[in-house]
Amino acid sequence: MNNWTIYLSGEIHSDWREQIEQGAEALDLPVSFKSPVTDHAASDAAGDILQPESDGFWRDHKSSKVNGIRTKTLIESCDIAVIRFGDQYKQWNAAFDAGYCAALGTPYITLHAEDIIRPLKEVHASAMAWAQPPAQVVEILKYVTSV
Amino acid sequence: MNNWTIYLSGEIHSDWREQIEQGAEALDLPVSFKSPVTDHAASDAAGDILQPESDGFWRDHKSSKVNGIRTKTLIESCDIAVIRFGDQYKQWNAAFDAGYCAALGTPYITLHAEDIIRPLKEVHASAMAWAQPPAQVVEILKYVTSV
Amino acid sequence: MNNWTIYLSGEIHSDWREQIEQGAEALDLPVSFKSPVTDHAASDAAGDILQPESDGFWRDHKSSKVNGIRTKTLIESCDIAVIRFGDQYKQWNAAFDAGYCAALGTPYITLHAEDIIRPLKEVHASAMAWAQPPAQVVEILKYVTSV
Amino acid sequence: MNNWTIYLSGEIHSDWREQIEQGAEALDLPVSFKSPVTDHAASDAAGDILQPESDGFWRDHKSSKVNGIRTKTLIESCDIAVIRFGDQYKQWNAAFDAGYCAALGTPYITLHAEDIIRPLKEVHASAMAWAQPPAQVVEILKYVTSV
Amino acid sequence: MNNWTIYLSGEIHSDWREQIEQGAEALDLPVSFKSPVTDHAASDAAGDILQPESDGFWRDHKSSKVNGIRTKTLIESCDIAVIRFGDQYKQWNAAFDAGYCAALGTPYITLHAEDIIRPLKEVHASAMAWAQPPAQVVEILKYVTSV
Amino acid sequence: MNNWTIYLSGEIHSDWREQIEQGAEALDLPVSFKSPVTDHAASDAAGDILQPESDGFWRDHKSSKVNGIRTKTLIESCDIAVIRFGDQYKQWNAAFDAGYCAALGTPYITLHAEDIIRPLKEVHASAMAWAQPPAQVVEILKYVTSV
Amino acid sequence: MNNWTIYLSGEIHSDWREQIEQGAEALDLPVSFKSPVTDHAASDAAGDILQPESDGFWRDHKSSKVNGIRTKTLIESCDIAVIRFGDQYKQWNAAFDAGYCAALGTPYITLHAEDIIRPLKEVHASAMAWAQPPAQVVEILKYVTSV
Amino acid sequence: MNNWTIYLSGEIHSDWREQIEQGAEALDLPVSFKSPVTDHAASDAAGDILQPESDGFWRDHKSSKVNGIRTKTLIESCDIAVIRFGDQYKQWNAAFDAGYCAALGTPYITLHAEDIIRPLKEVHASAMAWAQPPAQVVEILKYVTSV
Repeated sequence: MNNWTIYLSGEIHSDWREQIEQGAEALDLPVSFKSPVTDHAASDAAGDILQPESDGFWRDHKSSKVNGIRTKTLIESCDIAVIRFGDQYKQWNAAFDAGYCAALGTPYITLHAEDIIRPLKEVHASAMAWAQPPAQVVEILKYVTSV
Repeated sequence: MNNWTIYLSGEIHSDWREQIEQGAEALDLPVSFKSPVTDHAASDAAGDILQPESDGFWRDHKSSKVNGIRTKTLIESCDIAVIRFGDQYKQWNAAFDAGYCAALGTPYITLHAEDIIRPLKEVHASAMAWAQPPAQVVEILKYVTSV
Repeated sequence: MNNWTIYLSGEIHSDWREQIEQGAEALDLPVSFKSPVTDHAASDAAGDILQPESDGFWRDHKSSKVNGIRTKTLIESCDIAVIRFGDQYKQWNAAFDAGYCAALGTPYITLHAEDIIRPLKEVHASAMAWAQPPAQVVEILKYVTSV
Repeated sequence: MNNWTIYLSGEIHSDWREQIEQGAEALDLPVSFKSPVTDHAASDAAGDILQPESDGFWRDHKSSKVNGIRTKTLIESCDIAVIRFGDQYKQWNAAFDAGYCAALGTPYITLHAEDIIRPLKEVHASAMAWAQPPAQVVEILKYVTSV
Repeated sequence: MNNWTIYLSGEIHSDWREQIEQGAEALDLPVSFKSPVTDHAASDAAGDILQPESDGFWRDHKSSKVNGIRTKTLIESCDIAVIRFGDQYKQWNAAFDAGYCAALGTPYITLHAEDIIRPLKEVHASAMAWAQPPAQVVEILKYVTSV
Repeated sequence: MNNWTIYLSGEIHSDWREQIEQGAEALDLPVSFKSPVTDHAASDAAGDILQPESDGFWRDHKSSKVNGIRTKTLIESCDIAVIRFGDQYKQWNAAFDAGYCAALGTPYITLHAEDIIRPLKEVHASAMAWAQPPAQVVEILKYVTSV
Repeated sequence: MNNWTIYLSGEIHSDWREQIEQGAEALDLPVSFKSPVTDHAASDAAGDILQPESDGFWRDHKSSKVNGIRTKTLIESCDIAVIRFGDQYKQWNAAFDAGYCAALGTPYITLHAEDIIRPLKEVHASAMAWAQPPAQVVEILKYVTSV
Repeated sequence: MNNWTIYLSGEIHSDWREQIEQGAEALDLPVSFKSPVTDHAASDAAGDILQPESDGFWRDHKSSKVNGIRTKTLIESCDIAVIRFGDQYKQWNAAFDAGYCAALGTPYITLHAEDIIRPLKEVHASAMAWAQPPAQVVEILKYVTSV
C-alpha cells in the first residue's frame, strides 16, 4: 500500500475525473486512477469489434460484456472506489458498481449533489463517505493515504 | 435444493410480487419468496425504533442500515433474485442489489418493460434472464425448479 | 451429511441416470440426485419462455443462461458430482462442469468408456475416481456414504 | 493493473498464440501472455521426469498432474483468459479451463470458428465475448486495456 | 431464513439477554438465541476439564481456547449479532467479537448506554444499529424478521 | 447449531471413537459423529470397486482418492474435529487432517498421550485443546454445546 | 515476501511505534510499517473534510468511517499486525482490530503490560504472541523475517 | 508469475534444500525459495524471545506460535510447496503443512524415499507429484516454470 488504486465509477459527461486526478497530482498523492472507458460512443460500440449485431438489445449486451471485462477487473483490484451520480440519465450502472463494491467489502465514496441523497439512501448505507465537490474527494484521499 | 429461495428486489408500488407469488402457488412450485419490507412508510421509519433523528440525512441513513440487516441477509441466503425496475423513482437500490448479486455470483432475473432496456444494459450483462410480465418469471421458476 | 446430494452432469441420451438412481434406491442409500433438465428439446427452448429470438446464436445463448440458473445452483450445492461422457456430441458442457467443480473443490467422479481416457486426462487429473459402468458409481456411493 | 496478464488456453496445433502475441506487441499493449506447455510431446512426457510409468493411464495421469501445477497456477493468477477451440481433437481440457474460470469469476473470451457455436453454447453462456480470428482478440485487448 | 439465529455477545452480569429473549418470545418472533457460556466461574474454569494449569496466564489461555470452540462456531453461524457493552470491566472480548463480525460481514447491533458512545465510535462505524434499552433490540428484530 | 457435527479423525485400531460416542449418548449431548471408514481392509480396498490396479502405489492412490470423497466432505462440513494420535503407525493422515482443519478455520481438539506432545507441537499450536482420555473430549463437548 | 508489511494498531499516546520502527531500521529488517492516522485531533476531525456535522454522534460516526477507509484497507493488506493496549482509555478499537485480524486469519501480536493479561484473555487466545516491551516485537520480527 | 515462489517444508536435518536451491540456481530458474527457520535450536527457542516459560509444554507452544507467524504467512503466499519426509522423527509438521496446502488449493510435491509411500498415501492423494531425489524437484520446477 505505498500506492493506492482508486476506481472512478459513474457519470461520463462532466469533468469530475479530471478534477480529482489533477487535484491528486498537484498534491503528489500516492494514488493511481482507473476508470471505465469514458468515450460514450466507443463504449457503446465495444462489441462491434466482434461480429456486429443488428438487434439493438444484443448489440448493447455484447458491448456491455466487453466493457465488463475491463470494469469488473478494475473494480475487483482497486483499493477505493469513487462513485459519481450526476443529474442526467438513469445511472443504474453506477448503483450497480456500488452494490458490487459493497458485496466485495471494497470501501467506496459517493460523489453527488445534495438533491439526490434521498433516492441514494441504500447506496449511502454501505458507503464510507459522501462527497459533494470533487475537491472533497481529493482531500479525503490526501487524508487516507498520508504517511 | 428441494425448495428454492427467491428474493424479490425492487419496486414496491405495484403488485408484481403478488402476481409472482400467486402464480407460483397455483403451480405448487417448490419455492419460498423473500422480500424487503414493502410498506414504504414503515421502511422509511425503520430507524425511528431507535433514538429518533431530526436531521433528514441521518434519519434515512439509520433506517437504511436497519433495513440492510434484513435485505443483506436475505440476498446472501437466496438462490435466485428477481429484480424489478418500474416506471417511477430512481430505483438505485434495485441496481445496487443487482450489483451485490453479481459480485456474490447469485443468479438474478431482471423484470421490467422494454423502454428501459438501454439504461439497464450493464445490469443485463450480468443477469441470467430478462422477463417482462411477472408471469414469465413464474414460467422460468417452473422450468428451473422442475424435478 | 445424513443425506448426500449427488449432481449427475453430462450425457442426456442414454439411461445412465436411471441406472444410478435405481441402484441407489435398491440399496436405500442416503443420497438425493439432481440433474440438469434432460429433455433435449425443452432445454434448447428454455429461453423461448421469454421474448423469442430469431437469431440462432442468441436463442442458444438465452436458453443456456436460463439453464444456467438451474445448473449453477445445483452444482454449487451438491456434495459429489458424477460427470458422464458418452460416445456422441462434443460434450463440452460436461467438461465445463468438471472444471467448475475442480475450481470449487467439489469432488467429482467421471463416468465413461475406456476408449476416451486419453482426451480426458486433464479432466481425470482433478477427479476423485473414474467409473465405467454406472453400477460402479452406485458401489462408490454405497462405500462413501456408509455409516 | 498497469499490466494485464492474459492466459491463452486450448489448441496447441495452430499459430493462434503467436498471432495474438505479435498483434499485441505491434500495438505495444500493456499485456503479458501465459500458456500451458505447448510442445505436445513434452507435455505428454511431463511425468516421466519422475519415476516412469508402464501403464498408459497412470503415465497420462502423472503428466497431467505435473502440467496442472503450471496451468492451475497460471489460470488462477491471470486477469483474462482466451480459450481456443480448433477443429481437431476432443478439446475437453479447453472446456475444463473455461469452467474453471467461470467458477473463479475470471473473465474469458472464446476463440473459434462459427461451425461449433452450437456445442459451445453452455461455454458461451459464461463467457464475456466470442472472437473468431485472433486479430479480434487483439482488438478486444487493445480496447479493454486502454488508458 | 424462516428462523433467524441471533448471537448475544458481551456483558454477562446483567439480565439483558433474558429481557431480549422474553421480549422475543412474547411476540413469537421467528428467532433463536445463542450465547457464550454466561456462568462466569464455569467459563474461567473451562480449561480445567483438561489437565489443570498452575500458571494463571496459561489457565486463562486454555479456558479461552475452549470457550473459543463455542463462540467462534456460534458467531460464524449466526445471522445477526447483538453486542452488549455494560458499565464494568474492560469488555475487550465484546469489541473483539464486533471486529470478528465486521470482517465476516455479519450484521451486528451494539447495545449500550449513551455515556460510552465516544470510545465505541470505531465499533459503531461498522455496526448496523445502536440500541439502548434491550426492548429496542426486540423491536428491531420484530421489524427485520417480519414476513 | 442445535446439533453439532463432530468429525473423529485418526487412529482406527483402538476404541476411542466408541468411548466418545457412548459418553455423548449417555449425556444426551446434541452432537452427531462422523468418521472415515474405520474398517482398515475395506479402506485399503476402496479403489478396487473400480478397475483393480496391479501396481501397489496406484492401488493405494486410487483407494485414497475414493476415501477422500468421503473424508474431505465430512471434514468440510463438521463444526469441530477431534484428531487422535495413537502409539502405532506414522499417522500422517491425522496430521494432514489437522492441517486441513487449520486452513479452513475449523476448531479441532487433539487426543493423545503425553509422550508425544513434543513432535505434535506445531499441530497443537493451531489446536483449540489437547485431551488425553476420550472422556475429556466428552466433557469438552458437554461444555461447548451446553444451552 | 521479500518485504513484510506490519500494521501497528492501537494506542496513539506513547512512542511505541517509533521504538519498533527505529529498532527495525537499526537492524535493517525487511519490513514496512503501516498505521492508522495517529494525530488524535486530525483523526477526530476526519469527517469534517466533508459537510460538517453539529451532532456529536454523527460527527464521530462520519470521522470513523473516513478513518475506516484507511484502516480496513491497511489491515486487510498487512502480513502481521501488532496490537498495542496502553493504560488509558477504553481501547475498544484495538480489540476490534484484533477480532478483525482473527476472522481474516492474519497473525497478530499483542503488546501490553502484565497487569491487563486477564481482561485480554480472549484476545490472546487468537494471538500468535504477547510482547511486553516494544523491543520484543523487534526481536520477533527479526526472527520471523530472517532469510 | 514471472517469478515463482516455492516453499520448502519439512525435514531440517539433511541438505535437500541446498540441493534444490543450487540446482535451480545452476539453471537460472525464475524461482524464489522460502523455508521455515531450519536452525533446530533457534526454532525451539523462538518463544524465549518473549517472557521465558518453565513448563515444557507451554515453551513448545509459545515457540510454535512464533514460528507459525512465519510459516503460515509463507505457505499462504507461495505458488508451489515441496514437502520433504526424511527417515527420522515423527514429521507431523510436514504432513500438517501438506493438509494446509490441500485445503488452500496450493499445489504441492512430496519428496521422500520409496519405503514410506504406504503411510503417505493420503498425503499423496492430494499431491501433484512425488519426487525422490531432490534433482527431480529441480527438473519439475524447470518444466513448470519454462517460458
